[in-house]
Amino acid sequence: MVERDFLADFAALSRVGATPKGGVHREAGTPADGAARRWLCSWFERHGLHTSVDAVGNMYGAAEWLPGAPFVLVGSHLDSQPTAGRFDGAYGVLAAVHAVAAARDAVAAGSVTPRHNLAVVNWFNEEGSRFSPSLMGSGVYTGKLDLAATLTVTDRAGVTVAEALADIGFAGTDPMPPAVGYAEIHIEQGRILQDSGTAIGIVTANWAASKYAVTVHGAQAHTGATHLADRRDALVGASRLVLAVRELAEAFEPGQLLGSVGQFTVSPNSPVVVPGTVTLSIDLRSADAEVLAKAHEQFLAVVDAVNGAGEVEVDIDSMTLRPSSAFQAEGVALAEAAADRAGLSCRRMLTMAGHDSVNLKDVVPTVMLFVPSNAGISHNEAEHTDDADLLNGVTMLTEVVTALLAGGPTR
Amino acid sequence: MVERDFLADFAALSRVGATPKGGVHREAGTPADGAARRWLCSWFERHGLHTSVDAVGNMYGAAEWLPGAPFVLVGSHLDSQPTAGRFDGAYGVLAAVHAVAAARDAVAAGSVTPRHNLAVVNWFNEEGSRFSPSLMGSGVYTGKLDLAATLTVTDRAGVTVAEALADIGFAGTDPMPPAVGYAEIHIEQGRILQDSGTAIGIVTANWAASKYAVTVHGAQAHTGATHLADRRDALVGASRLVLAVRELAEAFEPGQLLGSVGQFTVSPNSPVVVPGTVTLSIDLRSADAEVLAKAHEQFLAVVDAVNGAGEVEVDIDSMTLRPSSAFQAEGVALAEAAADRAGLSCRRMLTMAGHDSVNLKDVVPTVMLFVPSNAGISHNEAEHTDDADLLNGVTMLTEVVTALLAGGPTR
Repeated sequence: MVERDFLADFAALSRVGATPKGGVHREAGTPADGAARRWLCSWFERHGLHTSVDAVGNMYGAAEWLPGAPFVLVGSHLDSQPTAGRFDGAYGVLAAVHAVAAARDAVAAGSVTPRHNLAVVNWFNEEGSRFSPSLMGSGVYTGKLDLAATLTVTDRAGVTVAEALADIGFAGTDPMPPAVGYAEIHIEQGRILQDSGTAIGIVTANWAASKYAVTVHGAQAHTGATHLADRRDALVGASRLVLAVRELAEAFEPGQLLGSVGQFTVSPNSPVVVPGTVTLSIDLRSADAEVLAKAHEQFLAVVDAVNGAGEVEVDIDSMTLRPSSAFQAEGVALAEAAADRAGLSCRRMLTMAGHDSVNLKDVVPTVMLFVPSNAGISHNEAEHTDDADLLNGVTMLTEVVTALLAGGPTR
Repeated sequence: MVERDFLADFAALSRVGATPKGGVHREAGTPADGAARRWLCSWFERHGLHTSVDAVGNMYGAAEWLPGAPFVLVGSHLDSQPTAGRFDGAYGVLAAVHAVAAARDAVAAGSVTPRHNLAVVNWFNEEGSRFSPSLMGSGVYTGKLDLAATLTVTDRAGVTVAEALADIGFAGTDPMPPAVGYAEIHIEQGRILQDSGTAIGIVTANWAASKYAVTVHGAQAHTGATHLADRRDALVGASRLVLAVRELAEAFEPGQLLGSVGQFTVSPNSPVVVPGTVTLSIDLRSADAEVLAKAHEQFLAVVDAVNGAGEVEVDIDSMTLRPSSAFQAEGVALAEAAADRAGLSCRRMLTMAGHDSVNLKDVVPTVMLFVPSNAGISHNEAEHTDDADLLNGVTMLTEVVTALLAGGPTR
């Protein structure tokens, strides 16, 4: 019965911003994100959770027993990448919703005595595709990002975060509920759980990531009238960077380093104009801080080499490092005990991708859980997790939330 | 006095859609293009030329002496590339305006007996940056493009040519005036005239061009969670094509072949998503048909090699060849005689870039003239031609138009 409710809710939520190929397209602050948020508000109302929205658009659905006491927060994000899968983020929010409702019912039935209050959270703009950086809502919540500056960030059309939130009716004024602990469940976005036949992954640390915003400057010219010797082609320079990043990553042992260019914007982008500028976002990731540091040095050498060739000028506009760091060991132990009680197989693992839990763990004890992803496919409409794995995750998260509520490792 | 009028008109026209760096931004069918067109209508009205607009937005300003007789057309285009120079196209239209007015005055004064009627023409969408293909208005005029199909071409926002023309008030219903001959003057967009100290270039033939629309198909994935071995990165594949086109062009003798990628659009273009598709427009150009044929074969081999590597699939969505062909020899001779009368140095040369005259020459005798371009800079706000060179061009075009009107080589 409870299982059927979860799957019906997930099917309903997946219809919001659905794409023809079975995915969703719900970038942060767009009408589709607004519709998913209203769906969540409605769920909160129907199930007696109190809705609040803070100034950066984070949404909370609270069950409160202890006036003035802090909260165990449980959640993820409803926003998506463009033409994305329907599980990334949304599964974690919906699992949180069901886990919180179940814990609330257990309190009502007298089987759990709450030591804290409890709330679902839907973080604003985890994905960062429309507004940069990613992990925006949890970044403001944890004090890593400045609220006022964040509200003025613009998308490529010049719309600010503040305007986008107002447009969808989620420019909130409620306070951020104080946290004592955080739990999140997410699809793995890798193959480890599927390949090893394991139900639950318990995250012990995150991969480190270095992200670079780069501009390649050339000179706009006529493709049909400008001789090669006279060209300063920004696209040629930027293409050299793309291939150099790939080669740099391939030179490490398999699995040691990821190197990617995701955003790549050519200007003026006309068929008969030699491109004058290209902006790129480059990311390098590793579980090993030394490997990442070595890759960073090699990347700087690549930039020097492209600059040295003389055709274009490469500027590194910004560089951010998200270091690798551990999730609290007590949380890992609490999760292992919960899996044991629930009769679910589990293993410790790292998260390669960033999650809001990576921000939260730096301020409160945090438990991060994974369920299997088919073939590790992610940020793709073909992303898939079987129903049985989704339901195992809800069971696991409910055990973890109940244990946190009853006084497990919290601040 | 006449010279001062021309320079004042050119300064006024250059203010329409002006950019901070001294260029213009007037893509076809945009409000800035509409404003430039209204400026031209007003000029026609003030100087007694009769305005008409055909169904693809080509504008004509006519002086008619012989009811029902065909026209010598003289013109170029007011649309521009994004952040372009202010000379490309606009100079040719304004030179035509002044040449036609001068010829009309000569007829009125009795010093020329017209054998035809005479009209300025502003061709729609020569540039092709917003709506593809380029040379659109002259393509429909000469029957190379179908009118109905052309009106349904969309820009990247989904706006059709028909809608864009209606939006700026230039969806015309007037008939296309029949032509007996065509003349056009343009900045060279190369260095030959400047380097040789020559006032006027007389074009004998156009370079051939092969243009390819290509899509690289990969698989959208998570930059932070997808191992290199699992990736099918469309941006990596597309970057290989960009560099292969450059290498292919550099392998020929200097000046034999141009190879370029101008438009390059990445999807979904998010910082943390491995790109799923890239669309590219590639062009190869040569004065020598054999060189271009050899380059075409080499390009197909490059596509096969990228496909053979197995990471991505490259589709050539379309390929068009604009062959090299000669402008009429009688027109070249007429222009040389005109330069001689005007006391201007001239030389025969090829055009590397495409122009509306390349379409027109296939249906009527056509004279194509160049004036010097500073350092050959073009499709760039820094594009420049000295006033003295601009005025020499107006003198030359006036001589040519008068000669055509009096019965020079026409159909």
